Amino acid sequence: MDAVARIERSLHGAVGLADIAGSPPRLAEAMRHAVFPRGGRIRPRLTLAVAAACAEDDPALTDAAGAAIELMHCASLVHDDLPCFDDAATRRGRPSVHVAFGQPLAVLTGDALIVLAFQVLARSGAAQPSRLAALIGVLGRAAGVPSGIVAGQAWECEAEIDLAHYQRAKTGALFAAATVAGAAAAGVFAEAEGWRRLGARLGEAYQVADDILDVAADADAVGKPVGQDAAHGRPSAVARLGLDGAIRHLRRLADEAAESIPDCPGEAALRTLIKQETRRLMPGAVAEAA
Amino acid sequence: MDAVARIERSLHGAVGLADIAGSPPRLAEAMRHAVFPRGGRIRPRLTLAVAAACAEDDPALTDAAGAAIELMHCASLVHDDLPCFDDAATRRGRPSVHVAFGQPLAVLTGDALIVLAFQVLARSGAAQPSRLAALIGVLGRAAGVPSGIVAGQAWECEAEIDLAHYQRAKTGALFAAATVAGAAAAGVFAEAEGWRRLGARLGEAYQVADDILDVAADADAVGKPVGQDAAHGRPSAVARLGLDGAIRHLRRLADEAAESIPDCPGEAALRTLIKQETRRLMPGAVAEAA
Repeated sequence: MDAVARIERSLHGAVGLADIAGSPPRLAEAMRHAVFPRGGRIRPRLTLAVAAACAEDDPALTDAAGAAIELMHCASLVHDDLPCFDDAATRRGRPSVHVAFGQPLAVLTGDALIVLAFQVLARSGAAQPSRLAALIGVLGRAAGVPSGIVAGQAWECEAEIDLAHYQRAKTGALFAAATVAGAAAAGVFAEAEGWRRLGARLGEAYQVADDILDVAADADAVGKPVGQDAAHGRPSAVARLGLDGAIRHLRRLADEAAESIPDCPGEAALRTLIKQETRRLMPGAVAEAA
Repeated sequence: MDAVARIERSLHGAVGLADIAGSPPRLAEAMRHAVFPRGGRIRPRLTLAVAAACAEDDPALTDAAGAAIELMHCASLVHDDLPCFDDAATRRGRPSVHVAFGQPLAVLTGDALIVLAFQVLARSGAAQPSRLAALIGVLGRAAGVPSGIVAGQAWECEAEIDLAHYQRAKTGALFAAATVAGAAAAGVFAEAEGWRRLGARLGEAYQVADDILDVAADADAVGKPVGQDAAHGRPSAVARLGLDGAIRHLRRLADEAAESIPDCPGEAALRTLIKQETRRLMPGAVAEAA
């Protein structure tokens, strides 16, 4: 089974928890809307790739780790799209959750997905409690305070924004968690800092590609509104470096990522995969990876 | 150190995670506002009482479990107070989080507190991975789908409300988790269903007391708006049974709870405590326990 099929299967299994009798049906429907159809699934693919490179011995735990990371990402999209933040009417080419289901259910859908991310880990990790403990810690740090994605989003509510902390938290944290979680799911706790750095670099590359997309693509191609960074006065690599400078920066980050893989049995294969993936982020092919 | 002091200390430690350099300062302030000054801390006191009755051997883990339960409760209050739900301007006698900090930070404060609940467990449970795995599962079930507090709140967004599921999820789930988590923190996994039932009964008693409060108290005394059940057309024990009937029902639930404690070394002391606590829920003294 290829990585994407594994990821979709574990996400369907996770969201299916909400389909049990006695669960409010519209919440279940809204959660499904938030998670499917799939986006790029970049983060969980990274988790699976790192676990494979670390000679994974418990694929179900890897799948749970990937699903947890992706559910947390989907939760953040639902809340970020709310009228009090980006007020985005569309996401992945369809109405955003609050447009389709109303604001109350959008708030609760995000909440339920955050919790579900931890539930998924708890269900698959009970037989491997030490790995579970590490994975819960990794997911919590990536999501919460002081420097997870919620903290990243909260920088937008500060009078003075700390740009480095903002970007590291808002995008980098979940990418860094994706790599560290892949290693931890495979029972590899050494080199966590190296895995974290690799994920953070890939996250930065992805953020720069997203900034480029926001000025260089059209909304139909990416399935969400463009020109949002300028409209909301958000920091952007394009605003800082210009379009050509941002493209050069993206290329450099991709090269650095490929060269910074920690020692592991599948290092060469992972390097090839990372080169392929980061090439897809380059303008021209950038829309595929949204 | 008494239970309340232990709980406040662990909550201060948890929220202090947001005070580290590089964390957005207004988010940290809003989280503190949501958690302090203290409400009744009924749920974590229950966790500590059950752990003590189960001869706790790792008080730090008990404290983490109690803090996690209370943080999850605080998160739900912040989101339930939002304009798209109850639109409550005050909470515990002070401006609610969205009034004091704006809607964006209120959404993020709830999110951050949900995540923090899991982070607190992960930090204190690393040395006891089997207990940690159980506690993460208990907290996830109490908070998420299919029947945790988020699912409970989501029933308010359904065209047809399933009353039994709504009440069990919205209030009962976190009380049930409070007792089960107390036992699990003490390494007691047997009788989980008995502990769950005890917590659920206490949760129902608390809900009935809250319904009585909503018609029989004044806003200053309880620090939040009253008359909200009728105003929002929410189900209420008073609407269903009348005021006297609700009071009789509350007394019966309290008696049943005191008689349903699972076998444990500290059963007698726990029974005394539960009788004291449920007596405080009775009208007249009801405001103290809000």
